[in-house]
Amino acid sequence: MFFERIYEKGLAQASYIIGCQATKEAIVIDPKRDIDTYLEIAERENLRITHIAETHIHADFLSGSLELAHQTGAKIYLSDEGGSEWQYQFDHVGLKDGDVIKIGNIKLEVMHSPGHTPEHISFILTDLPASTKPSMIFTGDFVFVGDVGRPDLLEKAVGIEGTMIAGAKQMFHSLKKFKLLPDHLQVWPTHGAGSACGKALGAVPSSTVGYEKLSNWAMKINDEENFIQTLLEGQPEPPKYFAMMKNLNKVGPKVLGSIPHPARLSVAKFKEALTSDYQIVDTRDKLSFSGGHISGSLNIQDNNSFSTWAGWMLDYKKPIILIARERRVDALNGALIRIGIDNLEGYVSDIDKLEISGLNLEILNQISVDELKDDIPEYKIIDVRSYNEYDISHISGAINIHTGYLENNLDKISDGEKIVLYCTSGDRSAIAASYLLRLGYRNIYNLSGGINAWIQAGCQTERKNVDQMVMTESQ
Amino acid sequence: MFFERIYEKGLAQASYIIGCQATKEAIVIDPKRDIDTYLEIAERENLRITHIAETHIHADFLSGSLELAHQTGAKIYLSDEGGSEWQYQFDHVGLKDGDVIKIGNIKLEVMHSPGHTPEHISFILTDLPASTKPSMIFTGDFVFVGDVGRPDLLEKAVGIEGTMIAGAKQMFHSLKKFKLLPDHLQVWPTHGAGSACGKALGAVPSSTVGYEKLSNWAMKINDEENFIQTLLEGQPEPPKYFAMMKNLNKVGPKVLGSIPHPARLSVAKFKEALTSDYQIVDTRDKLSFSGGHISGSLNIQDNNSFSTWAGWMLDYKKPIILIARERRVDALNGALIRIGIDNLEGYVSDIDKLEISGLNLEILNQISVDELKDDIPEYKIIDVRSYNEYDISHISGAINIHTGYLENNLDKISDGEKIVLYCTSGDRSAIAASYLLRLGYRNIYNLSGGINAWIQAGCQTERKNVDQMVMTESQ
Amino acid sequence: MFFERIYEKGLAQASYIIGCQATKEAIVIDPKRDIDTYLEIAERENLRITHIAETHIHADFLSGSLELAHQTGAKIYLSDEGGSEWQYQFDHVGLKDGDVIKIGNIKLEVMHSPGHTPEHISFILTDLPASTKPSMIFTGDFVFVGDVGRPDLLEKAVGIEGTMIAGAKQMFHSLKKFKLLPDHLQVWPTHGAGSACGKALGAVPSSTVGYEKLSNWAMKINDEENFIQTLLEGQPEPPKYFAMMKNLNKVGPKVLGSIPHPARLSVAKFKEALTSDYQIVDTRDKLSFSGGHISGSLNIQDNNSFSTWAGWMLDYKKPIILIARERRVDALNGALIRIGIDNLEGYVSDIDKLEISGLNLEILNQISVDELKDDIPEYKIIDVRSYNEYDISHISGAINIHTGYLENNLDKISDGEKIVLYCTSGDRSAIAASYLLRLGYRNIYNLSGGINAWIQAGCQTERKNVDQMVMTESQ
Amino acid sequence: MFFERIYEKGLAQASYIIGCQATKEAIVIDPKRDIDTYLEIAERENLRITHIAETHIHADFLSGSLELAHQTGAKIYLSDEGGSEWQYQFDHVGLKDGDVIKIGNIKLEVMHSPGHTPEHISFILTDLPASTKPSMIFTGDFVFVGDVGRPDLLEKAVGIEGTMIAGAKQMFHSLKKFKLLPDHLQVWPTHGAGSACGKALGAVPSSTVGYEKLSNWAMKINDEENFIQTLLEGQPEPPKYFAMMKNLNKVGPKVLGSIPHPARLSVAKFKEALTSDYQIVDTRDKLSFSGGHISGSLNIQDNNSFSTWAGWMLDYKKPIILIARERRVDALNGALIRIGIDNLEGYVSDIDKLEISGLNLEILNQISVDELKDDIPEYKIIDVRSYNEYDISHISGAINIHTGYLENNLDKISDGEKIVLYCTSGDRSAIAASYLLRLGYRNIYNLSGGINAWIQAGCQTERKNVDQMVMTESQ
Repeated sequence: MFFERIYEKGLAQASYIIGCQATKEAIVIDPKRDIDTYLEIAERENLRITHIAETHIHADFLSGSLELAHQTGAKIYLSDEGGSEWQYQFDHVGLKDGDVIKIGNIKLEVMHSPGHTPEHISFILTDLPASTKPSMIFTGDFVFVGDVGRPDLLEKAVGIEGTMIAGAKQMFHSLKKFKLLPDHLQVWPTHGAGSACGKALGAVPSSTVGYEKLSNWAMKINDEENFIQTLLEGQPEPPKYFAMMKNLNKVGPKVLGSIPHPARLSVAKFKEALTSDYQIVDTRDKLSFSGGHISGSLNIQDNNSFSTWAGWMLDYKKPIILIARERRVDALNGALIRIGIDNLEGYVSDIDKLEISGLNLEILNQISVDELKDDIPEYKIIDVRSYNEYDISHISGAINIHTGYLENNLDKISDGEKIVLYCTSGDRSAIAASYLLRLGYRNIYNLSGGINAWIQAGCQTERKNVDQMVMTESQ
Repeated sequence: MFFERIYEKGLAQASYIIGCQATKEAIVIDPKRDIDTYLEIAERENLRITHIAETHIHADFLSGSLELAHQTGAKIYLSDEGGSEWQYQFDHVGLKDGDVIKIGNIKLEVMHSPGHTPEHISFILTDLPASTKPSMIFTGDFVFVGDVGRPDLLEKAVGIEGTMIAGAKQMFHSLKKFKLLPDHLQVWPTHGAGSACGKALGAVPSSTVGYEKLSNWAMKINDEENFIQTLLEGQPEPPKYFAMMKNLNKVGPKVLGSIPHPARLSVAKFKEALTSDYQIVDTRDKLSFSGGHISGSLNIQDNNSFSTWAGWMLDYKKPIILIARERRVDALNGALIRIGIDNLEGYVSDIDKLEISGLNLEILNQISVDELKDDIPEYKIIDVRSYNEYDISHISGAINIHTGYLENNLDKISDGEKIVLYCTSGDRSAIAASYLLRLGYRNIYNLSGGINAWIQAGCQTERKNVDQMVMTESQ
Repeated sequence: MFFERIYEKGLAQASYIIGCQATKEAIVIDPKRDIDTYLEIAERENLRITHIAETHIHADFLSGSLELAHQTGAKIYLSDEGGSEWQYQFDHVGLKDGDVIKIGNIKLEVMHSPGHTPEHISFILTDLPASTKPSMIFTGDFVFVGDVGRPDLLEKAVGIEGTMIAGAKQMFHSLKKFKLLPDHLQVWPTHGAGSACGKALGAVPSSTVGYEKLSNWAMKINDEENFIQTLLEGQPEPPKYFAMMKNLNKVGPKVLGSIPHPARLSVAKFKEALTSDYQIVDTRDKLSFSGGHISGSLNIQDNNSFSTWAGWMLDYKKPIILIARERRVDALNGALIRIGIDNLEGYVSDIDKLEISGLNLEILNQISVDELKDDIPEYKIIDVRSYNEYDISHISGAINIHTGYLENNLDKISDGEKIVLYCTSGDRSAIAASYLLRLGYRNIYNLSGGINAWIQAGCQTERKNVDQMVMTESQ
Repeated sequence: MFFERIYEKGLAQASYIIGCQATKEAIVIDPKRDIDTYLEIAERENLRITHIAETHIHADFLSGSLELAHQTGAKIYLSDEGGSEWQYQFDHVGLKDGDVIKIGNIKLEVMHSPGHTPEHISFILTDLPASTKPSMIFTGDFVFVGDVGRPDLLEKAVGIEGTMIAGAKQMFHSLKKFKLLPDHLQVWPTHGAGSACGKALGAVPSSTVGYEKLSNWAMKINDEENFIQTLLEGQPEPPKYFAMMKNLNKVGPKVLGSIPHPARLSVAKFKEALTSDYQIVDTRDKLSFSGGHISGSLNIQDNNSFSTWAGWMLDYKKPIILIARERRVDALNGALIRIGIDNLEGYVSDIDKLEISGLNLEILNQISVDELKDDIPEYKIIDVRSYNEYDISHISGAINIHTGYLENNLDKISDGEKIVLYCTSGDRSAIAASYLLRLGYRNIYNLSGGINAWIQAGCQTERKNVDQMVMTESQ
């Protein structure tokens, strides 16, 4: 049996390609939308991708199943569990609990495992004829290493009321089934540390049923009420684009075919774009952006979080122009496409050239810990991290508005004020600051070094008290 | 806990880097000698490599422990088990069964597991404080996925008589200890499919104790005699360089420091080398080599088997010149260094230029299945694969001399004869043919497409009969 | 003034981009069809390409004027001289002798310079206001360094009878005008050494009017008859694709827009193609091709002559598949597009994989000088070089058929014979051999090392005698 | 004849490789110190570099003659003209006016052409036997396209009094000789636009004797006094490193052999360096540097002027650490080596990582035109451009201190003042600002967009008046 895990850091997402070396057939489980990776592995290993499967309707990335089927002719195997609301709306082979997929000598048995979503299934693999006993389970967003999938996304991100509690109950019962599996089974989930599909995912790629039973917090709570409460508390803010992903993955993402290199824009075309309804995304590092940027541009840095923040901050309907290094443009385009943003118009690389051609650059004010600490009453301080981080420790006097929820909390920010934004070390507050500058706010300051520098300098922080913790800023 | 498996395809060798995210310390288990990979991962993950450990004295690759210690200042942890013959002869922290290494919050417990070698140890990992239960075992060459380490290398490759049976017995008892470990433990071995350290290694990267107990052939034989016999039979020929590796790893490989780009040789210098005692290694594909090559050059193709065949065929004491593509030279040099060949003098890239400058190219004769099958009595046919492959099926009338043992069997090949060499598809027979041409043999033919083409054309093959199977050609 | 020469080695073709640094306008003279080069230079130098000009209707490459105009909006300036037969048939600004183009402060004056073609013009540049005196002349295919353009292409390649002598006369008179230009003028022609648009082009990129008057053979013959005879004799065979180029450049080449990466074909698709009317072009080196190739494939090596030989050997109407290295595919596609071959269907990279999947590889027989010289009467020997090379020296007994004219001389080659092909060192004879193998000829041998090896071994050659020189094989 | 011009943009320096295709010998004229370029061209063209020549003792870059001779065994041909002070002090073949070098069939005739320096020679090339007339002259720093070499470097940069006028006289007489050369001769100088070896060099790579006679300002002045005065006025400030270059080129630069990739420093090693006498050079763009930089680092951007500014600003005796992109490190090292800075200790790439590891970043204050123009009296404004640029137009009230002469004018800048630095668009003022910050000045502001933005905003500038022009700030 051939086995390879493909890990996309930007999404903290794992997919799997598994092949039968006898028949040269292979299956891909939970493919991402930029499918070249799978085609290359199959080519290298002399395999044909004949099967594609998903564990559930994903919310955090656009599925590559249709794309991959289009390129390879493989069949798509999807859950028909979960009731009428949760049925995929494009052509597929339907799967129910207990169904079996055969890929050459490899057997995948379907186990319905609702909780994260109602239709969620897992796949138990047996590597015939080497052994008649199963060796692995692909758990999707059901069981992670050290955590379980959150059941509140549908309610919080998609807005389907009442599903949060119902999902938590289903999770409780699905875990009972999981505990009946043999200890030796390897567990390969669809997400790793950093995913917003859970709250405490481990960085280790895989685990076993036996080990999770011993060490996963969710396996240790036997009381249903207690379990539900614990599961729901402390879940991070769901990215706003999850609602759209969910829907697109259900009806079927657009097939792209081959993805061309985005267009390099001339200075003239770039200037035209500035006067239209384009979103200019400046992917340079936050220091460069602070030093000088095109007025109105959003600073989403080219790092592992690019996909996620693009999903949070961009309007899917408006065309996008990147300011990015030439050799990174394809990767950034891939990162956008992975979450369904297909309307990249082009890019420019050289901000110097733009400046020379007469565009004035704007500065993002930075404020040092020294300046701020001596003059706190002068400023309104906003902590743009998640409420979990804020609750644990924040700069005394700061209010909390998650970067992605600024849009919903503009009434709390008036243009007359001097506003200091901060996060852990300045990445998210640069996004937040660029967002507010774009809206026309003038007195925006980014705290250099973030709360890290604040703490290092021995300045005062505080925890959220219990009363406050009932209502959080960002929801 | 941070965890990453580094897999070197050319050696079918896995090493591991494991880090504690709280203290930023990390350990590397069984490092290869080109250590950049580890330094880059540590840099990327913001970790310091503070510990290095080996499971045993390796025979199939040169250890990178000293190199890595030299660059990072990390301490080296090595087995002091196995008796006086098997003691590492350079500075290290000695380990005995039951000892514990702490890397930040990560605990590695030593388990003596002799069999493959007398000093062999395994490491059982516990990821504190997340769990007090162990989650993984690093088994080195003790337990592989679907196989166990071979105990006959010391006798066959290094020539220490009597160790084969003794090792097999130790393996039997070590496996008893293994079976007592909890089913849920993940098993991460040092080798994958294709390694010569066992005979039936799986291509899946990891397994679990429970699954191996259920499906590994070696776990199912409870009778000691039967186990020993089964373990020893069918082991592939051990590469000849294993003896040297073993010794170098015991006394401590030379530290290289940074590895420069090999020198590109001028045509003039290359011509000089031809008249001296250089080994010219032509790494082009076998078709190119057949079409025309420098007289006296060895054809070891630039593919995943390069390290192994270089180890088999090259004299460690004579300087080497590569014929290779410019952008592959560093990788090929790395592949040589990994097995302790440090005397690469340089390379040339452009065989056309050599030809233009007056060097005559020699052709390697190819013979097609059609030509051979009509005229078999004309030729002496030599199967240059391993005796296992030969035993299962070979061209009727062919004798078996493993490519790496041609040197020891030249008395069976006389220059007057027309000699056809074949293997599975022509890669190994190209090595063998170039080796014989180099010695001055003239009537050498390489069977196009190898036995694969022979079988496809419906020609006759035969199995080795039982009597023959007592004595094999290559030993 | 900004000035840069762009030299395309595969076509031995020079184009020029000249910009006015005051107004930021630029002109490109004689652009090739892959226009990225010009766009990148303009971007780098902060120039806008506003003008495009051609010296004449090119025969040896497809013009990039329309492509470049499409991308930049620049205007195209073309000759309206030469009579009704030689009028460009697409939208342009017409130029007559004496007309002036202004690109910012740069002045280009048109000089009608027929001979190579009737409509041919040259451009005399003055760099105002720095100087009111001209500094350069762009001579196209009129005056080269050390040679002049050949006037026989129209008759020989395009088949317009009578134009050869007429053109030579025009050239004689155009040169008279050239000699009146000031000595100090720099001469920048459109071709360098190796172009088929002349017979003795120098490798130096530029010259001056004064120096050409002193040293160019064509300037030294003052008798018209003598000039015509000398000019026409010894011109190389015109590539067959010149006729098509000429016509396409007159009516206007298809605009391509951005050029995508060609498709990588699966083994299955490649096998399908083998049964259809595809042209398989194997771009590997000749040694690899000799060692083993797909039956029916043509060997046109990936080197500087790729464009030219593709133009000679390929049928423009049939789809093409390349066997080529992944990272060279874009460059090879560019080389095809440059001469108007737009129907590349895709490529495969790994011939090993094709062989493993069951395709038999065919060998191209090689014969060494030693084998041939002892057995000459056994073989029919064909010199596949140009008749000029043949005339100077060839293997005794060989006949001459230019590689590109094999198609027209198949009556001279019967399948029963053992045929030895040779050229200088084996590149062209590999093309020729693959062409004949493709047609089904069986006993084809390629002479290793070509006539170079033959001469080096001291074997006999002969010159063409005077009588023979009247009639050449290839015309 | 083979001919190729190698142009190094960072030095605006041209060198030449010329080969005889008959004998395969080649000469390099005025090689730069990173000689790979020449070796690669020779390899590609199948030539051996057998001769090396220099036109004079260079002041603006370190000569590669010894390096190239070391690698190739070629002989070095150097001027023995100019008197005892101007003799090369290492082994070479001495040349006097009228001497001839033969490279195969190529003839180079030596013409003594003092002025720029006393020993300066030019080479007149004849391409035998194609022509007995010369076709090119390599003029070094004697005649440029549109300008002539400056005679004041020795006095101003090296401090040899009285040489300025003497040199100008020699130049006048050398030009008389130049005018006697035939008009048709191509002129290939050693520098192009941007070099500090003259004041008005053209961007066109070559010219002719005839054209220069018509259009070069220096050829048109027939009165010696007038010529001398015109030649000396308006010459730019000579970079300070010229003195050292001159001397090193005379005694012979150190031979480097192969140049290894500089060491990547760990964060720990970088922190150590901060406390020692290292020069930290931050090569990121000025916006990034402004947004945040390591305290004490100099901002010399990675662009075409890197060599020059490194030469101006760095202390040759102190070790250097670069902050640079990984893939640019080799090129930047080459740029340093080219001007004799051999003590690069290593580099770091990721300033984010430095910040995370606890190093505070410092901001470079920027001031916009809007802020400055309303509050001019608050600030001391320094124009850090050359005095020529200042004289033509500067911000009203600004004083002029050339960036490279800040060191000599610190008495004009007191730490208490608010200091605004500006140049054309902000590149040089970023260097200047980083230099002053490094010295401990606190209130340094960089004018965003430089004088370009100032003019664009319609603010007031002034010219230097005639009286002031007698004494310039920077000398």
